Amino acid sequence: MSAARLFGVGLGPGDPELMTLKAMRALGAADVIAYFAKAGNSSHSRAIAAEHLRAGVIELPLYYPVTTELPSCSAAYRDAITAFYDKAAADVAAHLEAGRNVAVICEGDPMFYGSYMHLHTRLTPRFAAEIIAGVTGMSGCWSAAGMPIAQGNDVFTVLPATLSESELTRRLADADAAVVMKVGRHLPKLRRALDQSGRLGRAIYIERGTMADAKMIPLAAKTDDDAPYFAVVLVPGWATRPGAGS
Amino acid sequence: MSAARLFGVGLGPGDPELMTLKAMRALGAADVIAYFAKAGNSSHSRAIAAEHLRAGVIELPLYYPVTTELPSCSAAYRDAITAFYDKAAADVAAHLEAGRNVAVICEGDPMFYGSYMHLHTRLTPRFAAEIIAGVTGMSGCWSAAGMPIAQGNDVFTVLPATLSESELTRRLADADAAVVMKVGRHLPKLRRALDQSGRLGRAIYIERGTMADAKMIPLAAKTDDDAPYFAVVLVPGWATRPGAGS
Repeated sequence: MSAARLFGVGLGPGDPELMTLKAMRALGAADVIAYFAKAGNSSHSRAIAAEHLRAGVIELPLYYPVTTELPSCSAAYRDAITAFYDKAAADVAAHLEAGRNVAVICEGDPMFYGSYMHLHTRLTPRFAAEIIAGVTGMSGCWSAAGMPIAQGNDVFTVLPATLSESELTRRLADADAAVVMKVGRHLPKLRRALDQSGRLGRAIYIERGTMADAKMIPLAAKTDDDAPYFAVVLVPGWATRPGAGS
Repeated sequence: MSAARLFGVGLGPGDPELMTLKAMRALGAADVIAYFAKAGNSSHSRAIAAEHLRAGVIELPLYYPVTTELPSCSAAYRDAITAFYDKAAADVAAHLEAGRNVAVICEGDPMFYGSYMHLHTRLTPRFAAEIIAGVTGMSGCWSAAGMPIAQGNDVFTVLPATLSESELTRRLADADAAVVMKVGRHLPKLRRALDQSGRLGRAIYIERGTMADAKMIPLAAKTDDDAPYFAVVLVPGWATRPGAGS
């Protein structure tokens, strides 16, 4: 193994103040920072980290390929994404082989629905890695909303809004507390599933949860079905049940 | 409302370096820090916060009542716990009414299975509160283990080991990735449920996840059933499935 180390650095949900001390120190010590971004867009993680970057640090942006014309279930899409992660891992490996520590910076927590994992599985057979846990986006959301989410023996679940209406309904009814991610164009379906599972009354819709321009509203009071891809819906467990105050 | 503010401050999973910058600043600015602890024990959250406390800060320890002789489902237990939280909230309120900002410090994230919520629900009708999200204990565990937990459209769930064997089996089989909390004396039952749900082979047993003396072992390789109450079992989703490297 090379003596250089790979760091998966969680930066938290967006507010730079929700970065950990350990992440801040890792940024200050890294020879290279790498980050994922959509082609043509600036990187959210780069923006969160900005004020803690070392002068002269090498930056390695990893731009996702443009795949909007490919169905996400197609072999062509899968091949394009696989080739992209292979190339990204090779680019990171080249720095590690040259003895440079590389910090891959990530919104939220690196091991929880993060793109960093695609590098981790490719690189850890050859390089030592250290993961710096981060505050997840969902923690940022329920904290900003002042919303207790789960307590005691609650069953808590995270669901992608991409599930079918019947699966969403079944799983929402089966959990005490839930977070639904990737809401976007699935909002009308999700709304029906929440209604059928008896959870609509306690569902909170959130956009840009920990940003200064965050938008939070009871879903039942939201009169349109416009939602960005990264919007989430929280379904708190504990605080809404009888006797929760005790 | 009083001008003084209540802060629910998440300190992360145990390593003081996994505290956020915002939590550190809140500790430095608080007039009073309050923390829960078991009677006769030192407070874990007090220990995590120690080096960031202001000289002369007022400390308000909140000692859980000793209820070991009461069944946790009994009315007597419930009454004792309710009275304890009522008294704790009154003690915090007295400081807020006197114009002193109070930071309630919490391991992990305040709104995710945290005792802080019992104060939050009692105090927020009268006082402004700000929640500072923290890295959860489970994020600390899977990061320390270098274990990708969930990706893409995975369904992720958190289960208390107190559930029945059949409920654990059903819910483990129904999730892509899971974290089981409060393992303790439930380990033999949990082991059977993991086996029946086909998840035993990927289950990781963890004690003191982010401490220097952390213990991590594939559950199938653990030869005894000794486990402390706060041990967790991780059941990773993504990394263990075919094609996960892509």
